[in-house]
Amino acid sequence: MQAELRNISTHGLLRLPEYIRLWKDKRITSTPDYIIVHESPSTALVDGGKGLGLVTAPKAMQLAIEKAKTAGTGWVAVRNSYHFGIAGYYAMKALEHDMIGITMTNANPLVAPTFSLNGMLGTNPIAVAIPAGEEPPFVADFATSPVSRGKVDVFESLGQPTPEGLLQNNKGELTTDSSILRNGGALRTLGGDVAHGGHKGFCLTAIVDILSAVLPGANFGPTVVPTLAYVKDKTKAKDNGIGHFFGAMRIDAFQTAEEFKAGMDQWIRTFRQAQPIAGQERVIIPGDPERESEKEKMEKGIRISRKSFEGLMDIADQLGVDFDESGFEG
Amino acid sequence: MQAELRNISTHGLLRLPEYIRLWKDKRITSTPDYIIVHESPSTALVDGGKGLGLVTAPKAMQLAIEKAKTAGTGWVAVRNSYHFGIAGYYAMKALEHDMIGITMTNANPLVAPTFSLNGMLGTNPIAVAIPAGEEPPFVADFATSPVSRGKVDVFESLGQPTPEGLLQNNKGELTTDSSILRNGGALRTLGGDVAHGGHKGFCLTAIVDILSAVLPGANFGPTVVPTLAYVKDKTKAKDNGIGHFFGAMRIDAFQTAEEFKAGMDQWIRTFRQAQPIAGQERVIIPGDPERESEKEKMEKGIRISRKSFEGLMDIADQLGVDFDESGFEG
Repeated sequence: MQAELRNISTHGLLRLPEYIRLWKDKRITSTPDYIIVHESPSTALVDGGKGLGLVTAPKAMQLAIEKAKTAGTGWVAVRNSYHFGIAGYYAMKALEHDMIGITMTNANPLVAPTFSLNGMLGTNPIAVAIPAGEEPPFVADFATSPVSRGKVDVFESLGQPTPEGLLQNNKGELTTDSSILRNGGALRTLGGDVAHGGHKGFCLTAIVDILSAVLPGANFGPTVVPTLAYVKDKTKAKDNGIGHFFGAMRIDAFQTAEEFKAGMDQWIRTFRQAQPIAGQERVIIPGDPERESEKEKMEKGIRISRKSFEGLMDIADQLGVDFDESGFEG
Repeated sequence: MQAELRNISTHGLLRLPEYIRLWKDKRITSTPDYIIVHESPSTALVDGGKGLGLVTAPKAMQLAIEKAKTAGTGWVAVRNSYHFGIAGYYAMKALEHDMIGITMTNANPLVAPTFSLNGMLGTNPIAVAIPAGEEPPFVADFATSPVSRGKVDVFESLGQPTPEGLLQNNKGELTTDSSILRNGGALRTLGGDVAHGGHKGFCLTAIVDILSAVLPGANFGPTVVPTLAYVKDKTKAKDNGIGHFFGAMRIDAFQTAEEFKAGMDQWIRTFRQAQPIAGQERVIIPGDPERESEKEKMEKGIRISRKSFEGLMDIADQLGVDFDESGFEG
């Protein structure tokens, strides 16, 4: 629901059929064991027991917050997990404790490292939530690839090309064909080619993969057992799920929360008041669009497509769950 | 010297005249007080006392490592500091302790946030060093802008244009004019325009600015008092220097170092053996080119330009330091 409210609907109700399919295929369980495998004053390694990240991640983020209360910071790496929705949801949990929250995860291999023919890394998002005082918090939540897979899917469903420079075909050549991910293609890294810093995008996506997956012992990079029907499993690795990485840093482990939040207010106002280039309204502070969407949708409701609605009814029917249509309009 | 050896000469001997000028202008001191302002089991805030980062950063990184030994991780934010050379140098200090090392810093405002007319953020680098077993370590060390200022300077000195999409002029229009940073222009963010994920590059550079500068109380974004003669000081803020952020994470605070390093070997080999696209030799593991450069230069020596050499002689002359030419050839 948070994904829908924050206008990140690619990570919302759309994902429900995928979750159901994974459960029917016995790849995930609805009652996972959550095991803290190892810990230190500021860290923990968690085994998610083949539950959805949606179930495991809130507990892991809470553990990071608890560690930060005593050690100053808390860092929790999770293996044996699956899709956890939007990264920002967990990072934002830190805000009410006057902490900075950090979330990362790896994902299905769709992004080609610089010079690679094949997709080997996920769209591996990073979310960082930072409290402010009078201003709303800074919340950056972004796939480290230039676009998310969901956005390419949207271009495809609308019959539109994907902008030049974002996709390559099965020969490694640039293409704007929005169906290419289903046909042996891959996303390029943030930045694009080397002249435009694409190797930095590779570094960034790789760092997220290593912290989220190698550090806890989940499947990394191309060894991730795909949850997307059209991604080929080339490595046949043992399935230890994907991994996540959560961090919480108590502000007053550095300076007082009051000083810092006043500084963040100044930061946010400085950038919000920046002079825009001609034709643009303003510089957008990370988190502003999603918060505005959330406010609007809490008042007016969430708009979903007829197809998504029918998908929900179908799932209810399959599972013998009573489907209450009274909350829906139109 | 590490910058020269690792073929990042934009951060090496070239910087010496800038350091001398800052010292003559009394903006930095050669004998700074290094003060730990506040600490928790896993964190510390350090005041660099207006020393060069080159002096302060090794101590701050060592403090992060010491914290990690007992708390599992260590995180140190530094204010009142100046240029610290290459970020990777400090991150790599963690490797010998079987820790992951992380370094960030903010810098002169040269990068325009998405839709901003003016440069407001530094090229704010991130370095992450991750130990492996039999393979050499993974070392990513990159400006979060698509190119560093140093690279644009190199294009300018060679009379070459900068690739399209990286620079904007004082109207916010794209330009390939490599002298534009001296003439009211700015670098664009990693990714470029919004269609290609440039807003994600803005998020990334902003996160580095906030962790490095707002968290310790250094000058952030456009309030950084420039150390480059051609960057205008528009804010006239009090000079608390720039800031850095250092992290060290003990591997065995998560899983055993042996397990993890075997995993990293597998990660590195998987990506090194990836099939390259036609015309490319291989996928490059972050850190490989710099390590190869270091090995070669330790054998064959460092090549510097006649101009740099004369610059060194000039500095020696100014400071009345005996200049031993015997180590130089050619």
